[in-house]
Amino acid sequence: MARGPIPMTTTKPNYTELTRLQLQIYRFHHFGSMAWWDRSAMMPPKGNEARAAAMAELEAHIHGLQTDPRQIDLLAAADDEPLDDVERANVREIRREMRLATALPASLVQAQTIANARSEHAWRTQRKANDWQGFLPNLREVMRLAREEAQHLADATGLSRYEATMDRYEPGMTRVNLDHIFGEIKSWLPDLVAKVREKQRGEKVTEPVGPFPIAKQRELSLAVVKLLGFDFEAGRLDESAHPFNGGVPEDIRMTTRYDELDCTRSLMGTIHETGHARYEQNLPREWLGQPLGRARSSAIHESQSLSLEMQLARSRAFVGLLAPMLAEAYGNQPAFEPENLYRLFTRVKAENLIRVAADECTYPLHVILRYEIERPLIEGEIECEDIPAMWDEKMRSMLGLDTRGNYMDGCMQDVHWSEGLVGYFPTYTLGAMYAAQWFATIRRSAPDLDRRIAAGDPSPAFDWLRANVWSQGRRWETPGVARRASGETLDAGHFRRHLEVRYLAEIVAPA
Amino acid sequence: MARGPIPMTTTKPNYTELTRLQLQIYRFHHFGSMAWWDRSAMMPPKGNEARAAAMAELEAHIHGLQTDPRQIDLLAAADDEPLDDVERANVREIRREMRLATALPASLVQAQTIANARSEHAWRTQRKANDWQGFLPNLREVMRLAREEAQHLADATGLSRYEATMDRYEPGMTRVNLDHIFGEIKSWLPDLVAKVREKQRGEKVTEPVGPFPIAKQRELSLAVVKLLGFDFEAGRLDESAHPFNGGVPEDIRMTTRYDELDCTRSLMGTIHETGHARYEQNLPREWLGQPLGRARSSAIHESQSLSLEMQLARSRAFVGLLAPMLAEAYGNQPAFEPENLYRLFTRVKAENLIRVAADECTYPLHVILRYEIERPLIEGEIECEDIPAMWDEKMRSMLGLDTRGNYMDGCMQDVHWSEGLVGYFPTYTLGAMYAAQWFATIRRSAPDLDRRIAAGDPSPAFDWLRANVWSQGRRWETPGVARRASGETLDAGHFRRHLEVRYLAEIVAPA
Repeated sequence: MARGPIPMTTTKPNYTELTRLQLQIYRFHHFGSMAWWDRSAMMPPKGNEARAAAMAELEAHIHGLQTDPRQIDLLAAADDEPLDDVERANVREIRREMRLATALPASLVQAQTIANARSEHAWRTQRKANDWQGFLPNLREVMRLAREEAQHLADATGLSRYEATMDRYEPGMTRVNLDHIFGEIKSWLPDLVAKVREKQRGEKVTEPVGPFPIAKQRELSLAVVKLLGFDFEAGRLDESAHPFNGGVPEDIRMTTRYDELDCTRSLMGTIHETGHARYEQNLPREWLGQPLGRARSSAIHESQSLSLEMQLARSRAFVGLLAPMLAEAYGNQPAFEPENLYRLFTRVKAENLIRVAADECTYPLHVILRYEIERPLIEGEIECEDIPAMWDEKMRSMLGLDTRGNYMDGCMQDVHWSEGLVGYFPTYTLGAMYAAQWFATIRRSAPDLDRRIAAGDPSPAFDWLRANVWSQGRRWETPGVARRASGETLDAGHFRRHLEVRYLAEIVAPA
Repeated sequence: MARGPIPMTTTKPNYTELTRLQLQIYRFHHFGSMAWWDRSAMMPPKGNEARAAAMAELEAHIHGLQTDPRQIDLLAAADDEPLDDVERANVREIRREMRLATALPASLVQAQTIANARSEHAWRTQRKANDWQGFLPNLREVMRLAREEAQHLADATGLSRYEATMDRYEPGMTRVNLDHIFGEIKSWLPDLVAKVREKQRGEKVTEPVGPFPIAKQRELSLAVVKLLGFDFEAGRLDESAHPFNGGVPEDIRMTTRYDELDCTRSLMGTIHETGHARYEQNLPREWLGQPLGRARSSAIHESQSLSLEMQLARSRAFVGLLAPMLAEAYGNQPAFEPENLYRLFTRVKAENLIRVAADECTYPLHVILRYEIERPLIEGEIECEDIPAMWDEKMRSMLGLDTRGNYMDGCMQDVHWSEGLVGYFPTYTLGAMYAAQWFATIRRSAPDLDRRIAAGDPSPAFDWLRANVWSQGRRWETPGVARRASGETLDAGHFRRHLEVRYLAEIVAPA
């Protein structure tokens, strides 16, 4: 994969001009991205209005560049130029970016910006008040616009409404494919969860006893993030209300949130963000600024955060590394014994109603439930009014839980729908499955992985991820990434075996 | 001064279009300004390259907007529209901004960017090595370009080269005026310094004994900045290698630097920055985004930082407030007795070679010395080779100090010339004189000022500054600001009386 910078020769003036325009867009994005991080992690409250006005100005400018009609001719002409495969892949991605940018009328984007922000803002209060009736009119308006948006995207891509809206995050994923994958999971996962619960019923787990001073949590987070290979010369770790990964590949700004009463949640959250961050920090430098140099898709991105959080950090070997670090940070206590800590990190809590607090085993069921509601919703097969009853029924059948009348911890729990975000949920579980597939491959190629991790060296995992995912950018479409990395396209069987080994048959093999 | 937002009526379409363009420029500046702060206070080292590329792209875009030729017709047409006085003042300032932006050929700006950065970078090492001969070729190139720049500005404004380059920072200040002001100061200041030294020779001053923990310094700084009225809901205080005031009026980002061995320097530095910050935070909101809503000039800006640092914070009354705060932060010690602290803050150190470490009395001599060299230098009357001899001679005659062969603490001590910055130095001392003039007026209008300060309430000073300086933006040209605020244009006599009262006759009146 060693390549110099994209050459600026005169034999491909149209392609060269396209890359120049992309670089310009990239540089303006730099400010938007940094300003977004700043708003969440640094900005004082009274700075908001000026920031919002500046952001709108910048976004309009970037949108103008992205939809520059010169690109149509340049793209057509570039097709006839002597491009190599890599350049053709870049053209494919430029074409895709432009199609997305031009698909939506500016008036719709503007209407959505206003309606989504208003609805999300109202949702914050209405959720706490369990006020479904109050939320419903906002949701209806947001979904009306989301359907319109999906129709425009469908018209531009030839996909169905749901596929077109999902395609922005997970290019190439189809409904048939997704129904097949999720259908399969539904066929075995509820039974697996029941078995795990049965097995764990007899296990004693001791919870850590707080408080855990924030300064100590910060120190520990920095040490763990360092152990995971994050480059602090090319990024920062700060704090924000909602942890996220921001900045640019050359300068990653990740955030976390500390809770004095809970020392493991923020730690696992930070490890999750570190997975996203390492992907971004190791994207191919020679294509930076081109669509080719960006992360492949949301599912692949999520596969990186979950590779670190679920596959690596909850492995028995890595928990063995974390245990003494926790004991040193907060003082020795029974909860930090390695075996107890491992049980704590792999505890299945099926009575949990909340997706973001869900364990690795039940999480996919929360996602599938949402997919089974948002797909017919955006396609116009059901209406917003139908959501609560469907939610209750699916929670009962898939997780055996009763959510009737509990909108707050039911269908109002996520921010996504409140701001018109449809088609993103599946990528969380696709990411978990890809992560299992990556680690199945890694374990085949590095049979001593757990011994190396236990000795404090997770580098075989990172080396594999770097070679097979990080360094590839968007060189291949998603199935191509999977095939080249693991010899096959996505196979949910790896995820199943991962759960079986870790949660049911751990005596057989370490996981 | 109560006014609504600039009206968007159809009776003045050209003026309205001008304001719209200015607002757009303002919003793009937002990102440049925040990115500049971020680079100094937050950015990890490997982020630099991407940031520099993004900044260059942004600056080119802003320059394109600033020099948009449509403005020429719009300005001409706006002159015939029914504008009120405020709008005409805004047009005056828009015209000035445009003239500055269009005066310089892009090729020169680019050549200067490269040469100045290279020279400044080399200067950092060469200064430490006392390497004047190594520095000279860089300085020659930088000054060659600075002269060219000054010539373009002179052509565009009809001013002399030096006046034109100074005009960017201090619009309207002329050489005749400056020679008069500085000439007057030179006639009495060396003698005053000698008398103060004589008087202070017999005084015992105890230095604080450190170390002073950084965490305590941070806490104390925040408390003092709060006491000085900085709005933390609309700004932040962070740390950087070189303290500065950044961000935007709606969201001020000031920085300071802490030294564990020195607890007063960073404190006074922070107070200085707070003066700049309060000016920016209190610029007229109804004109924000228009040139009219910006700070008047560099000297007026400096008059705000020095109003707080020199006039207010070194007054006996304010030192009385600081003394117990210092004692509480670092523990009681003799140095923190109010009388000792006051002596410490008003100590004249004439043997000091360094401008930025100079006291209030000798500081103007350091500035005048630089003016007397940089003016003939930019006008082509002397060459870079002539600087050291001139420097030595002036240091000897004005301050009685020997700098021969000591380039490091002599003519190589400032960053300004190393990066081609000429015409800025005078604004430091003009600012000190304006600050003295403001406080003479404030003391007349609020005779109980010191009693109020001693009681912990400096608000009479802030109220006056808000009404007379902060809220005025660029409504008036600089002499107009002074006249309206204090009944007269700049009169160096106030500065002289301030020094005489504080340093020689303090028994007569509190200062």
